[in-house]
Parts: sequence; C-alpha cells; structure tokens
Amino acid sequence: MVDIASRVYNHKWKIDPILRSLIDTDFYKLLMCQSVFRNKRETQVTFSLINRTKSVPLARLIDEGELREQLDHIRSLSLTRGESTWLRGNTFYGKRQMFRPDFMEWFEGLRLPAYHLERVGDQYELTFEGNWPEVMLWEIPALAVLMELRGRAVLGDMGRFELQVLYARAMTKLWEKIERLKEIEGLRLADFGTRRRHSFLWQDWCVQAMFEGLGPAFTGTSNCLIAKNRDLEAIGTNAHELPMVYAALAEDDAALAQAPYDVLSDWHEEHDGNLRIILPDTYGTRGFLERAPDWLAGWTGIRIDSGDPAEGAEVAIDWWRSRGEDPTQKLVIFSDGLDVEKIEELSAQFRGRVRVSFGWGTLLTNDFRGLTPGDALAPFSLVCKAVEANGKPTVKLSDNPRKAMGPQEEIARYKRVFGVGAQDAMEVVV
Amino acid sequence: MVDIASRVYNHKWKIDPILRSLIDTDFYKLLMCQSVFRNKRETQVTFSLINRTKSVPLARLIDEGELREQLDHIRSLSLTRGESTWLRGNTFYGKRQMFRPDFMEWFEGLRLPAYHLERVGDQYELTFEGNWPEVMLWEIPALAVLMELRGRAVLGDMGRFELQVLYARAMTKLWEKIERLKEIEGLRLADFGTRRRHSFLWQDWCVQAMFEGLGPAFTGTSNCLIAKNRDLEAIGTNAHELPMVYAALAEDDAALAQAPYDVLSDWHEEHDGNLRIILPDTYGTRGFLERAPDWLAGWTGIRIDSGDPAEGAEVAIDWWRSRGEDPTQKLVIFSDGLDVEKIEELSAQFRGRVRVSFGWGTLLTNDFRGLTPGDALAPFSLVCKAVEANGKPTVKLSDNPRKAMGPQEEIARYKRVFGVGAQDAMEVVV
Repeated sequence: MVDIASRVYNHKWKIDPILRSLIDTDFYKLLMCQSVFRNKRETQVTFSLINRTKSVPLARLIDEGELREQLDHIRSLSLTRGESTWLRGNTFYGKRQMFRPDFMEWFEGLRLPAYHLERVGDQYELTFEGNWPEVMLWEIPALAVLMELRGRAVLGDMGRFELQVLYARAMTKLWEKIERLKEIEGLRLADFGTRRRHSFLWQDWCVQAMFEGLGPAFTGTSNCLIAKNRDLEAIGTNAHELPMVYAALAEDDAALAQAPYDVLSDWHEEHDGNLRIILPDTYGTRGFLERAPDWLAGWTGIRIDSGDPAEGAEVAIDWWRSRGEDPTQKLVIFSDGLDVEKIEELSAQFRGRVRVSFGWGTLLTNDFRGLTPGDALAPFSLVCKAVEANGKPTVKLSDNPRKAMGPQEEIARYKRVFGVGAQDAMEVVV
Repeated sequence: MVDIASRVYNHKWKIDPILRSLIDTDFYKLLMCQSVFRNKRETQVTFSLINRTKSVPLARLIDEGELREQLDHIRSLSLTRGESTWLRGNTFYGKRQMFRPDFMEWFEGLRLPAYHLERVGDQYELTFEGNWPEVMLWEIPALAVLMELRGRAVLGDMGRFELQVLYARAMTKLWEKIERLKEIEGLRLADFGTRRRHSFLWQDWCVQAMFEGLGPAFTGTSNCLIAKNRDLEAIGTNAHELPMVYAALAEDDAALAQAPYDVLSDWHEEHDGNLRIILPDTYGTRGFLERAPDWLAGWTGIRIDSGDPAEGAEVAIDWWRSRGEDPTQKLVIFSDGLDVEKIEELSAQFRGRVRVSFGWGTLLTNDFRGLTPGDALAPFSLVCKAVEANGKPTVKLSDNPRKAMGPQEEIARYKRVFGVGAQDAMEVVV
C-alpha cells in the first residue's frame, strides 16, 4: 500500500539532497574540530577541492546548477536536537562527554560558511575560506556531494532493472569480500569510506552488511550519522590537516620542525587511550619518528596512511623497540588504499607482532569498478585539503611523492627541514 | 515512513500465503480447463504429486502443518471480480472472449476440491480426486506451494543481508543471461516458469526484468496473474494431460491409437492461429506425426517438450515438408529444460529454416544453483500429473524414457499400440 502522505511529502523537496545532516561526516573531523576550536579557533584557512584523477571531467558530468543546489542545501543544515543529544550524551572510545559543552554550543549554532565555485575547463574549482573550525567541516560533505552527483550523472540513463542489477552486483561484490574477511583470524576493521562513497544509502548498506557479516570483527564506522542511526561505534582520531595547518603557521624553520609535535602535544592534553594514534607520514614517517619526543612512544598506536604499508609498520615496530616499548602491545592502523587482498596480506604478516586494525575506505563504499560500461562508476581520487592558513601555503609530503601537495619551493623547504630524501613513488588509485 | 495501516493489516494474516489468486497459474491450464469443461466435464481424475528428485526429502524440509495451511488457503480462494473481468474482457492471442460465458460462470463459482495429504517416509503423497476441470487446477498451485515452502525452509536460517545478497546474486545471474539473450537475433521467448519458480515474487521480478532487458523479444508469461498485473501477454496452449486422459478413457487399442488425434480434433474446433500448436511427444513424436491426419499439418506449429530438442525440430521440419508444408512458415516452440546455452544453440541451428520460439521455465524462475551452501535451493524435478481417469491408469511415454509414467504393463501396451521402439534416455535435470 502506498503511504500517500510520504509520497506527497517527497514531492515537496525541491531537490534530492545528498547531505541531510551535519553529522553525516567523519568522526575524526569532529574531534579535530573541537581541538581546533580550543587551540586555533581564529586561524583563517582555505580548503580546496583537488581532483587527482584528471581523466574524470567533473564539470562535464555534473551540472553546475545542481552542484550549487546541493552545496546551498548543506549550508541550510544545522545540528538537530537528536544529533546534539547523541554527541553530548554518547560514549565515544569508552569516554562520556567527549565533546565539551562550549564546543557543543558553538556547533549547535553553526551553519557552514560560503563556498566559491567556478568552472575551469572540465574541472570545478571549489574553495572554502574562513575560520578553521567552520571551513574544515566542508571537506567531507563537499567530497560526498561530488562523488554522488557524478554517480547520479551515470545512473540517469539506466533502466529500473538495470539499476537493480547494478546494485545487486555491487552487493554481491562486497559480500564476497566479507566472506573472505570472515576467514581472517582476529580481524579488526572499521568503515572509513564516507568521503569517497558511492552514495549515502550505499554506505549505509555496506556498514550494515559488514556488521551482519563480520560481527565483532567490524568495529564501527567513521560516519557519525550512520553510527548514530545504526547504534555502532563512531571511529576515527586525527588527520593530516592538523600538522599541515600547524606547519603553515610556523614562523621559522625551527618552529616548522616542531609543528607536528605541537599538534600531538595539544592532542595529548585532550585525549588518551585508543585516541592517541600517531599519524606520522605528513612530512615523512622515518624522520618524524626518529626526532619524536619520548612521550609519543607511550601512545597507543600509529596510523599508516601512505607509502608501502608493510614497510611503514616495520618502521613503527622498530621505532617502538628502539624506545623500549613492546610492539605487541601497540596498535597499527592501516588506512591507505586497502582492499581484501591487502588486508589479508597485512593481517598475516603482522599477526602476533603488533596489534593491527584496518580503516577501509574507498574500496569498501565505492567499489563499482567493472560494473558499468566504460567503468563510468569507478571511484577516483578526489580530495579536499587545507591549502592555506593565515595566508601561507600548506605543504604535505607524505611517504608517497605522488601524494605530495604545496608550492614547489615550499615542498623543497619542508624536505630540507624534515630531512626527507628520495621516496618511492606509488600509484594513487583511490 | 511506515504505513501503519499496512503493517497492522499484515499482522492479521494467519499465514503468509504463497498462492493468493486462482489465476496465479499457467494460461494453458485455463485453456485446457475450458476445453475439458466443454468436452469431458464429468471425467473423474486423480492427480498426484511426484518428486522425481528423491534426494530432496520434502517431508523432512517442509512441516506438514504449514503445508496444510497453504493448501487450505488455496481452497479458500475464488476468482475476484477483477480477475474475472480480465479473463472475460482481455484479448488473448489476438482473440476477444477466448473464455466463453458458460465456462466463466462455472469458474466464478469454483473453489478447489479437497486434497489428500500423507507423509510416506521423507516424501509427501499429495493427491487430488474429482471432476477433471476442478482437479486439474490444483497442479500448478500444488507445485508452486511445495517449491516455495522448500525455499522458505532453507531461507529461514539466513541473515537479513545474507538474504539480500542471495537475491542480489540471483538477480545478477539472471541479468547476465538476459545480456546474452539480447544478442540473439530474432529471439522470441516467453516465461514458462510458474510451476517450478523459486517464489511468486521472484517470478514476478524475473518477468519484469526480462521485459525491460529483452523488449519485444520477450513475448509474455504463462502466468495469468503476472500477465494481468504487468499488462503482458498470457502465453500457452495445451499440455500432456489432455492426451493422457483421453488415452486412459479409450475403450480399446483402436480407440487408444486414435485418442491423441481426438484431443487435437476437439482443440481444432475451439482454436485457431497460434493456439494450434501440436504437442506430439506424449506417445512418441515420430509415430504420432507419421500417422497424423493431413489437417494437422496445417496447424501453426509444434512444441518440443522432451528428447533431444534439435532432433525433435528436424523431425518436425521433415514431416512438414513431407506433407507439402513450408517449414519456414511454421513455428517450433522449445520448452524442455532450457537455459541460455541451449537457447543460443537452437536459435543458431534453426535460423531461417523454421520460426522458433522458446518457453523458458525452471532455469528462468528458479536458477538458484550454486547460491547456497550444499546447493540447498537448487531446483528439482517435481511434477503433479493425472495418474488416473475414470478408474484407469494414465500413461506417458514422451521422447525420453526417463520421463515415462504409468504402470509397467500399460507402458508396454502403449508402446505396442503407438509403435514406440528403443528411445535415447536423457537426464532429467529440472
């Protein structure tokens, strides 16, 4: 029986909004936002969209008017009472009141700031400028909107059953991955796929399928809205934007060299336990760890987000040993370009040597490779990054030179300051 | 939004009925029923369920109480006004008022007669006795109920997402078949899968997917309810039960030899055009055609339902030629154990030599092979046949001795009367 009221209500929407909630974002964004709100509230930043996959002509696929409608809709969103209650009252990483009252009050009043959109050739220039805590919350919604609008452009020509079979194939593909993952002893894996998801509904499906299929091996999702709706753990710690902006703000080379540790020092004050996860690769993992203060070796784990993951984990294990720590008590979180084969391989390689967990992103929530003619739904490498802070450019080196960002002369300076030499280039797939 | 009324209404059902309509049956059943109603109304027949796949222990899988509930529910059904209007008012095979007013009046008053159910070992004995026009309408519902209850028994232990992926896999499997079938030039294909379908909803999905995927190459469905609901052609002509019962009623060998032609003589009076399809294999195709009266050579086509299909079609072509008919103007309908490979092969082999169409059954609506552990949902060979008429046993020989039915001594007599010698045995898969 058709629910007439629902149908009439649905007619009233001017658009089909892709983002419908300010907490349809990654948990670590909120943690970082609170940290920034406390420590660097007045910093002026610019975030910018970067499509690393130039072969996907976003501006030809996505109508500018539709994109503006979606972005405008996001600007109309504010935290609902239920969302606020969840953030204030829920336990995150075993801790109550993770989000402080002053932050929550600010968040409850927040609307996302203006955006700047311009078509340049076949790509869009999309930038966001303003106070760091506000602007940073654009990253995930902007990416999710572009990914989903590109998907809608492809799906628009498909028949009803063709569509159903497309999703049937995608479901089957994911389930086959889950069936393989089930076999991995001691697996711990979370969804990190919000930013490059095929769509919200698809991510929601993937998360629920993982929960049913993997049981306790599935530790949760980075997506706050899905975590809330499905009563799952919200997962995530911190990301490159913190050291990138802290570094850009540094007055001189000495302050620059210190910046990544300042980030973690601020974090150390705010968080403990499983939230004390080092992201060491922003300016080269080896140098970062060698020069790290001893208190960092006491942290719970390290997240490996670029370079060869096995090598990164070996470096981490060696470092812990060199600082008198027992690696078997430490946690390595792999989160870069994972798929089942790599998860199996890394699980086997590090079993018993270090605790391991996985943050599985794009190939969990957007593995539509091979499902449409011309692979028109294959995921691509879209990012939205802080490119400036207080008028100074940001720089990222990472452990893979293909993921490096920033003006050439600044990259050279950072390489000098952080002692980064030759790096192995690795293909950036997603 | 939940439609509360629907949900409450659904709670009121004591069971989830598998059959919900008397026209959830094959179209040819209704055509034959009308013919029987006109020509042999008082004949007393017994129909009996036969599970040719003894390895499927139906009585262990299906609870007797649940089976009774489903069968009792079917006995509570009667033709609805809309169903009656559709049968009375619709055009079938280009003809209005295919169903005569006296037949419709009878059908509108019909409730299915009693059934006899007994567990014998791991199988059920399920029989139906009474007037032929009433009893014959049990065949398809009885088969559909048993197939679907067996499915439910297997599905009962599966999780929500596991179930969704099961159907996703089945959908993908069918769609891949459709994608191959699309490539066949001049394809004409109908759904004949009611009796062995996985479930009603699944058949309904398959039919709609075929309609979208194949367009006009999909000529319709044998299922009247789906044809009505989806505005498709209802497809079908006649089946073995007519010659089997006519033959059983024959007083002596001479009358027996004549019985199959008497069936078609009655049919000839009632139908023309594309409904004049010979089903020649009940007592051996070659002998049947050799002895056939000339007026039969004028019929539109032949349905090949057992034996090697290519050989059967060659026999038909030779026979038409021998009677001075042009085979390129004739129709061969293949309907036995088809799957895509066979449809491709037969299409290629007979292109330009004879018109060809396909009645695709079990492997359209129930190809769950390989989708569950232990292949617990694979289709199996269940039939429900007329086994007695006016106290005398029925016999079927067919072009495959493994499909033969009846008491041994009667089979021998029929073989003698119809001049059937050695036959090639072929595996009966579905």
